Amino acid sequence: MNTKMVLKTVGQILVLEAGLFVLPGAVAVYYREWGCLFSFLLSIAVAVAVGGGLALFVRPKNRVIYAKEGFVLVALAWLALSAVGALPFVISREIPSYVDAFFETVSGFTTTGASILNDVEAMSKSLLFWRSFTHWIGGMGILVFVMALMPSMSDRPIHIMRAEMPGPIVGKFVPKAKDTAKILYLIYIALTLAEAVMLLAGGMSTFEALVHTFATAGTGGFGILSDSVASYSPYIQWVITIFMVIFGINFNLFYLIFARKARAAFHSAELWTYFAIVVGSVTAITVNIYPIYQNLEQAIRLSAFQFASIISTTGFATANFDTWPDFSKAILLLAMFIGACAGSTAGGLKVSRVVLTVKMVKRELQRLLHSRSVGVIRFEGKQVDEATLNSVSSYLAVYLLCFVLIFLLLCLEPFGFTTNFSAAASCFNNIGPGFGAVGPASSYACYSVGSKLVLSVAMLLGRLEILPLLVLVSPSTWSKKRF
Amino acid sequence: MNTKMVLKTVGQILVLEAGLFVLPGAVAVYYREWGCLFSFLLSIAVAVAVGGGLALFVRPKNRVIYAKEGFVLVALAWLALSAVGALPFVISREIPSYVDAFFETVSGFTTTGASILNDVEAMSKSLLFWRSFTHWIGGMGILVFVMALMPSMSDRPIHIMRAEMPGPIVGKFVPKAKDTAKILYLIYIALTLAEAVMLLAGGMSTFEALVHTFATAGTGGFGILSDSVASYSPYIQWVITIFMVIFGINFNLFYLIFARKARAAFHSAELWTYFAIVVGSVTAITVNIYPIYQNLEQAIRLSAFQFASIISTTGFATANFDTWPDFSKAILLLAMFIGACAGSTAGGLKVSRVVLTVKMVKRELQRLLHSRSVGVIRFEGKQVDEATLNSVSSYLAVYLLCFVLIFLLLCLEPFGFTTNFSAAASCFNNIGPGFGAVGPASSYACYSVGSKLVLSVAMLLGRLEILPLLVLVSPSTWSKKRF
Repeated sequence: MNTKMVLKTVGQILVLEAGLFVLPGAVAVYYREWGCLFSFLLSIAVAVAVGGGLALFVRPKNRVIYAKEGFVLVALAWLALSAVGALPFVISREIPSYVDAFFETVSGFTTTGASILNDVEAMSKSLLFWRSFTHWIGGMGILVFVMALMPSMSDRPIHIMRAEMPGPIVGKFVPKAKDTAKILYLIYIALTLAEAVMLLAGGMSTFEALVHTFATAGTGGFGILSDSVASYSPYIQWVITIFMVIFGINFNLFYLIFARKARAAFHSAELWTYFAIVVGSVTAITVNIYPIYQNLEQAIRLSAFQFASIISTTGFATANFDTWPDFSKAILLLAMFIGACAGSTAGGLKVSRVVLTVKMVKRELQRLLHSRSVGVIRFEGKQVDEATLNSVSSYLAVYLLCFVLIFLLLCLEPFGFTTNFSAAASCFNNIGPGFGAVGPASSYACYSVGSKLVLSVAMLLGRLEILPLLVLVSPSTWSKKRF
Repeated sequence: MNTKMVLKTVGQILVLEAGLFVLPGAVAVYYREWGCLFSFLLSIAVAVAVGGGLALFVRPKNRVIYAKEGFVLVALAWLALSAVGALPFVISREIPSYVDAFFETVSGFTTTGASILNDVEAMSKSLLFWRSFTHWIGGMGILVFVMALMPSMSDRPIHIMRAEMPGPIVGKFVPKAKDTAKILYLIYIALTLAEAVMLLAGGMSTFEALVHTFATAGTGGFGILSDSVASYSPYIQWVITIFMVIFGINFNLFYLIFARKARAAFHSAELWTYFAIVVGSVTAITVNIYPIYQNLEQAIRLSAFQFASIISTTGFATANFDTWPDFSKAILLLAMFIGACAGSTAGGLKVSRVVLTVKMVKRELQRLLHSRSVGVIRFEGKQVDEATLNSVSSYLAVYLLCFVLIFLLLCLEPFGFTTNFSAAASCFNNIGPGFGAVGPASSYACYSVGSKLVLSVAMLLGRLEILPLLVLVSPSTWSKKRF
């Protein structure tokens, strides 16, 4: 373990976070929220002191980052980022409890959008801005950001990218991982601007447009009103619906279009499966909820918004879907686990994993009936190697084990199965709202401190796809020191 | 597809079922239940007419049964067996609806124990006897029974055994599958007698002892009283607890003891994992429910009984665990999915699959961190080949897909998540009671006809471990005719 290199990089990331605090700080100045400004300045001081100390005084013997270091770095970076990111909430005393603030910040960076706030409208604007901005930062990944910015952070940066980017296969578009990171962020920024402009056109203020765009882009879901986005116009709801679906698409495809390979992008099996799931489910939910609303446009709009919000793991709401019929709720519950495409900002298992799993089952069935010969699985026009298939099925297993453990720990709380199960599913898959006591009309404030920490870990497990945190706490990571 | 050979064998099995009806018929005579006797005689006539017709007049060109035929035969045999087995309930008009009777019979043969009866005590004794006897027949498998009886039912009988016996690896003890089947049934009968004797010693009548032994041996769970076995003495509850655990053990191990290889039996990793799960969970539940009962002996007894009943997928109850704290309920819910050992009469995923899955996850983690070299997974002292590992992970995936589909269909009913989820889990894993409206103090009578059929299919999927039914409905099974 090249511990020193890992610590040094974590330090650099904290310094970067100090830089990120400047933006909400400026918002605080604009809205004359001097108390909040002080909180941000103090947080900057802490971030610079701790991060700068690590970055300057830890001197690694080499800059090599292997797979193991990549995982540990990503896990530690996200923990440090959240620990420091929670400070403005606590210092301003708008979220007095540190655990609550940590939960809220983890929820932000992991793009979950689960909140402990019962009255979000009482918060200062600069803090709401920071809260939504964490979604945007966490969406594409903080280390991918660092990679895009820094000239050469480390040798072998692909290991960091693999550890932070969601999905079974992490592709580089171009030979250098650094350049891939830059392209990713350029696409991300372009899409973010497009949505912001469309929301401004719908009559939102700049502040509202930015906050909602950050939350959509990162598929996070923090809003600024108690009813999420229900009180905005149908136009705005449709814009957000469409962008939620867009941010659930694999960014590789946008790159292909950008590189004038649009034909290849539109041949993506994952994309069409994703669209098919969206269209099929929205239709089913519309039929199921039509008797409640008696208005087809409204039923389609609410069903499309809610489903797009859940499958893209954003978590915005325009209806209290907790009061919908069980069948619609069950579809939403399943969508929580599927999630959107790999290589997007969304959480969940990812459509490509689900597709590969179904293909593996089919192959197994054929193998059993016809012969023992190994059939080849093709996906996105390429043969998928057995190592990838093994990692997909192992991921499914470890994903289930983690989910079961989180659910079991939550069941020490007296809220009943529906609430606890959906809270575990919602946080683990980085969605936000669940059903029952954690439904879209409620918050996670009811949970105890212990459960909030469990859920914070669940959100990090979900966003980082489990392995980095597993490697971080695995004794074998720390046993043999060889630097 | 050797369709003719399959149909002929199904016919033979129906004739055998006619023979099985004789036993409850004798009970009807003993208790002077003449209406029931008539029902059994009429059912015998139907079984002999249909089965005999198929067995005599269908003339296959050869007797070869390959993997495909094995699966189709098992699926059809279980469907036919349940369809005819339901007749006595309908003819006697004690369960007037055929769908209800079919549900009850499928529940019996699949050793689920889920019931649509609201007042089990109103039923005739001979029908209760038949109901519990189906557990005993279904427990070890009807085709294994046929194999043990008939001199040479078919060439390659191992394909039938593979299709009907639960667990990832089906071993033959002895070179001939027929002899293995005989040994299995001998062990099964010996254990059944042992339990019956111990229950008689506890003061049960012969009828009670037989009925409860059948239900324990098959890990079924049909009782004859509204409160299941809660009103019996602690001695009887402990006897049943211990035998529920015993019938959850892999029968291979009993064979090893029988073959004087006890040392090998006690080295079984699956056995010790199973015991560890039982002891750990019973301890946790005892601590959790102690405040309710304020009596340590009672808390241990209730916790041990309920947990043994769920993990062995029997489904007897001595307490309404639906009123227990969520944490205990969550442990029971998880146990529903794990199930007991492979090669036992229990349902669920099976301990060996869970162990192999955990080992695969560990290997994947090591592979990711250390090298791309393929590590070897060892289980029960042997190296597990990749084909078996692939089938285990595919099974997990197809198991989840089936469960999700069943749950989704049940959610068209208005009973809420807890009821629908646990009903799906309980039937699919062949347990019996669930939580909420299908808790141990209630029945499945509330579900609609459509849902009862869905649940019947769920029970068959669970008992036959999915593949036979999947092969039965797969178009590729029926496309190329080559006999």
